Amino acid sequence: MNTTVRDQLCVDTLRFLSVDMVQAANSGHPGLPLGAAPMAYVLWTRFLKHHPADPDWVDRDRFVLSAGHGSALLYSLLHLTGYDLSLDEIKHFRQWGSKAPGHPERGHTPGVEVTTGPLGQGFANAVGMAMAETQLAARYNRDGHTVVDHRTWALVSDGDLMEGVASEAASLAGHLKLGKLVCLYDDNLVTLAAGTDITFTEDRARRFEAYGWQTIHVRDGNDLAQIDAALKQAVAETQRPSLILVRTLIGFGSPGQGTFKVHGSPLGVADVQKTKEKLGWPSEPSFLVPEAARVRFHEALEHGAQAQDQWRSRAQAYALAWPELARELDARLHAQLPADWSTPIPVFPADAKGMATRVASGKVMNAIAANLPALSGGSADLDPSTNTALKDLGDFSPTRRDGRNLHFGVREHAMGAIVNGIAAHGGFIPYGSTFLIFSDYMRPPIRLAALMGLHVVHVFTHDSIALGEDGPTHQPVEQLASLRAIPNLTVIRPCDANETAEAWKVAVETRDRPVLLVLTRQDVATLDRTRYAAADGLRRGAYVLNRNSGQPRIVLIASGSEVALILAAAEILEQEGVAARCVSMPSWELFDAQPRDYRESVLPPDVPARLAVELGVAQGWRGYVGDRGDVLSVERFGASAPAKTLLKEYGFSVENVAARARALLAIPS
Amino acid sequence: MNTTVRDQLCVDTLRFLSVDMVQAANSGHPGLPLGAAPMAYVLWTRFLKHHPADPDWVDRDRFVLSAGHGSALLYSLLHLTGYDLSLDEIKHFRQWGSKAPGHPERGHTPGVEVTTGPLGQGFANAVGMAMAETQLAARYNRDGHTVVDHRTWALVSDGDLMEGVASEAASLAGHLKLGKLVCLYDDNLVTLAAGTDITFTEDRARRFEAYGWQTIHVRDGNDLAQIDAALKQAVAETQRPSLILVRTLIGFGSPGQGTFKVHGSPLGVADVQKTKEKLGWPSEPSFLVPEAARVRFHEALEHGAQAQDQWRSRAQAYALAWPELARELDARLHAQLPADWSTPIPVFPADAKGMATRVASGKVMNAIAANLPALSGGSADLDPSTNTALKDLGDFSPTRRDGRNLHFGVREHAMGAIVNGIAAHGGFIPYGSTFLIFSDYMRPPIRLAALMGLHVVHVFTHDSIALGEDGPTHQPVEQLASLRAIPNLTVIRPCDANETAEAWKVAVETRDRPVLLVLTRQDVATLDRTRYAAADGLRRGAYVLNRNSGQPRIVLIASGSEVALILAAAEILEQEGVAARCVSMPSWELFDAQPRDYRESVLPPDVPARLAVELGVAQGWRGYVGDRGDVLSVERFGASAPAKTLLKEYGFSVENVAARARALLAIPS
Repeated sequence: MNTTVRDQLCVDTLRFLSVDMVQAANSGHPGLPLGAAPMAYVLWTRFLKHHPADPDWVDRDRFVLSAGHGSALLYSLLHLTGYDLSLDEIKHFRQWGSKAPGHPERGHTPGVEVTTGPLGQGFANAVGMAMAETQLAARYNRDGHTVVDHRTWALVSDGDLMEGVASEAASLAGHLKLGKLVCLYDDNLVTLAAGTDITFTEDRARRFEAYGWQTIHVRDGNDLAQIDAALKQAVAETQRPSLILVRTLIGFGSPGQGTFKVHGSPLGVADVQKTKEKLGWPSEPSFLVPEAARVRFHEALEHGAQAQDQWRSRAQAYALAWPELARELDARLHAQLPADWSTPIPVFPADAKGMATRVASGKVMNAIAANLPALSGGSADLDPSTNTALKDLGDFSPTRRDGRNLHFGVREHAMGAIVNGIAAHGGFIPYGSTFLIFSDYMRPPIRLAALMGLHVVHVFTHDSIALGEDGPTHQPVEQLASLRAIPNLTVIRPCDANETAEAWKVAVETRDRPVLLVLTRQDVATLDRTRYAAADGLRRGAYVLNRNSGQPRIVLIASGSEVALILAAAEILEQEGVAARCVSMPSWELFDAQPRDYRESVLPPDVPARLAVELGVAQGWRGYVGDRGDVLSVERFGASAPAKTLLKEYGFSVENVAARARALLAIPS
Repeated sequence: MNTTVRDQLCVDTLRFLSVDMVQAANSGHPGLPLGAAPMAYVLWTRFLKHHPADPDWVDRDRFVLSAGHGSALLYSLLHLTGYDLSLDEIKHFRQWGSKAPGHPERGHTPGVEVTTGPLGQGFANAVGMAMAETQLAARYNRDGHTVVDHRTWALVSDGDLMEGVASEAASLAGHLKLGKLVCLYDDNLVTLAAGTDITFTEDRARRFEAYGWQTIHVRDGNDLAQIDAALKQAVAETQRPSLILVRTLIGFGSPGQGTFKVHGSPLGVADVQKTKEKLGWPSEPSFLVPEAARVRFHEALEHGAQAQDQWRSRAQAYALAWPELARELDARLHAQLPADWSTPIPVFPADAKGMATRVASGKVMNAIAANLPALSGGSADLDPSTNTALKDLGDFSPTRRDGRNLHFGVREHAMGAIVNGIAAHGGFIPYGSTFLIFSDYMRPPIRLAALMGLHVVHVFTHDSIALGEDGPTHQPVEQLASLRAIPNLTVIRPCDANETAEAWKVAVETRDRPVLLVLTRQDVATLDRTRYAAADGLRRGAYVLNRNSGQPRIVLIASGSEVALILAAAEILEQEGVAARCVSMPSWELFDAQPRDYRESVLPPDVPARLAVELGVAQGWRGYVGDRGDVLSVERFGASAPAKTLLKEYGFSVENVAARARALLAIPS
């Protein structure tokens, strides 16, 4: 069999494995695999550096299927090149328990780098991966020792490029001159609902050139030689990321080719048959893998083993020449923390004036950064306000590749997706930062981090109406509740500097899910921990600050800046002879994970008078205060005024907390 | 005083009113007003069609300060040109109760078209306004009768152009050839935290040209003649929106000019003094308005009256020539509904197979669309799935301006902000649509719609894990809770076709806030309303479907597709001798607004056994089920499998609902 014939056989094997998968499930997206199989074939067999037998090999190229609805194509590639994804799994595409779910899911299927499907996310993840590789290479490679050297590839669709998150990430990638990032754009002029002529007539190449990208056109997406040449040109470019616009025909070969009808629905048995006939493929059996195709794709195993062996030799030589760096790199890539990483965290002395928790956070971050090289991140143009700059550790830029401070610009959404990409790449504890209100701009990547179980940290400051004059557009009200609603995510709102230090410990040590730190703009007192319980109670989510002698008559619960309010109100109540327990509750998720005994020791079932105080909506608090409890909350939008005025107008005064507590106790029990 | 001198005096009046405002508040952003005052002056005195004495004049030009942090500049313009915004209000900039809040707020300050501050939103709002004007003009203007003819202007910043939402909206605006949209870009190379050189080096003009915009450069933002010429060029263009890149110096005249330090903090008393000296402005008094400037700005009142008079004459002639159209237009612009608008809404007969609520929604929309010309909207590339296309009413496009179906492309965020702009413009009940999961992409504009009290409708379908095979990336779990957390927003999740019809009535009749409809992908039975209570119970948020004889032992509560589950479980329980009340609860917000008597008649306080069933997180349900109730919910992410399998695996079976109910009753009371 000559090469050309064999190549075509391989391309069609990808096509029909995918089409049969979709048809068997009677659900899925056949259009992309039929159109994009040739570019995927050329990339995966001639350019992609990977080792199917070791999908976690750290120096592999990363491949992101940003157009996650084309999952069938990815599963075909993974199966054929020898990943641990059997034909049987593929036959159960989109069924309960299958390793071939509807959209690619990281952690679920070997070889899937990130969970994709929500459009634009994968593109921005890929930018993050390229940033990660660039920073690692700069820190660890040495003359004659190249241990970090891989590319990031993404396959993207029209929908990806329409999404704002991709625009943000593309602009940043161009600015940062990420020359080892290559995006193959399945430029098929069709989206799920229509042709692109009704919404998407911009000049995409010109737009990417404006961002500073190299653009390359492949006029015929079925021409393997053109694709090959384009990929070579992309690889040769070192200063600019590359967008390869590959003109394809969606649903190639099928009766509905070139129309949106083949985008997101199975072709149907009859049209599958017609497509196979048109492309000269046997109608039976389904899931056919010709031996010649199997052999060709399986070369990936041999090439992968060779590439990994070569890398191992380099890594061994490196470990001899640069043992400390090698150990550090190895630990990072295996998500191990330095033994002493938390030693430098300061203990903050009691101080009635105190400091904003954002300021405490900045001090903690700077204390730990030197010992924790994996910590790298930045803000969406707000680091002077969010206190997230790592001093003296440099800014990651086109000229300084080992800088650990990332500057995302006013691009919260891309920031969220980029830190996901950095975390998925490995070797980092990446963080992002903005005002809490702007977490709304980045909910999709926060959710995806939770879904993937990625260890990312976000530092959200200016956490309530107490930010003051900027007014309701900048004042979070419902954000705490809405973030707590996301599964598999830890939200922590510490009450003072020492709780902030503990929160950072949790944030660093939590390796399997994202952690959000919610911090004040305004000063809060640093509690006297000789008088109140130690701040490491934060690790259990909620803890009793002041132990009363005997049974409390009421439990006051608060998070963050409102803890000072309940402590002051408790003093008033105590003077009135009412024993009031104060509970600091920085994290619902950490508390809910405690054994019932502990939870009931903090919130005794036999004390029904419970008042929660939080500068946000009450939603969700009822479960902690119970039917006979109450919540002092904010159930409307904020307003523009100095913080003190706002707190008074919204009822967040010591007097009002005490009054609400008294009212609660007057309820007949 | 010659014109040049007077112009400069006016520009500096804008500058120093703004600077004094920020300094008096000791809070705010002086940098933009100092740099952008010249372009604002030229626009507001030579181009903007407005009437300060009648800020609601329907044919006024719209001006959007997308860079809302520059609010001081806008307040200076409004005050000086004669809007009802006194110097006293301005002196109380950013104080409690002032009409001059930290960021511009629609409905709060006369002349403020939209609430801005979260970057990128105003830009996309402006695109929506231009779309609104274009569609109205096409429908109502007639040969010789031009009653709709105004422009949309926006002042935008670097931050606006970095945000993805602006990229999405700009691409769509270029596609749609919105020639009457003009954006002045305060191109000052500085953001809040740094120079743009560290994040934003893309070629902005080239990018906008790629979108299909005209771009015009003003090399010196202090040169009024250059600005004037650029605005003339923008006005002359009819086929493309225009971006005018005005190179300015942020904080012009201040010691920190050209740096980020003057972006977001008051200059300080000393630097205010130095700035005044540098620009030759008297240091005292503060808030100085020279008489010549006052006179010049006040010309707006006279020009506005003239323009409005001319328009009134045209409108009168139009009313004679086209009385029906004139009445319709007038009603729309005054947010009046046709008397018979809801007559065509179908009543759906009882049907065990039923239909998806998205399908019912599509039928209702198409039934009412002909009688409700204000209804216009579309989806983010999903209308075949969300059933939101209005049949035979045309697609809004560069060649069909009166089409009522809008196509947003895969751009959820811009969709949200654009419908806000359409609603703010007036004359429309705009709607957007996508899958419920992708509401995450558009939370900022949903929140802003709620904050502004804008009447927009969103149709969110595929509302639970029951969408099936697409898997967890597409399956909403926490979205219902997180949307319900937003103040001033009505979320409705109807249980069948007739509740969907009622939900649309609420959605259309609610004129002062956004309404979200949350709909199924899958079929749900159309309830037999001779057996169960009438569907108009939906209007009260929750209602009893099945009245038991005597006191129920348990109350089962559900929304949407889960109502069928509780009805079936109640039948089993009744057979076992347990009287089970079934409550359909499509909307928390509507229910919470009912009098206590009604609420307690639905959820009797003396029936503590209450089970809520919803395919989403339980957060917030505890308040309805109480301490002794229970919630059957989804507390983890979904999975890829057919819907029936998923529902079983997640416990959403009739048997399990009945079992949970029995367990609840076994609890000793």
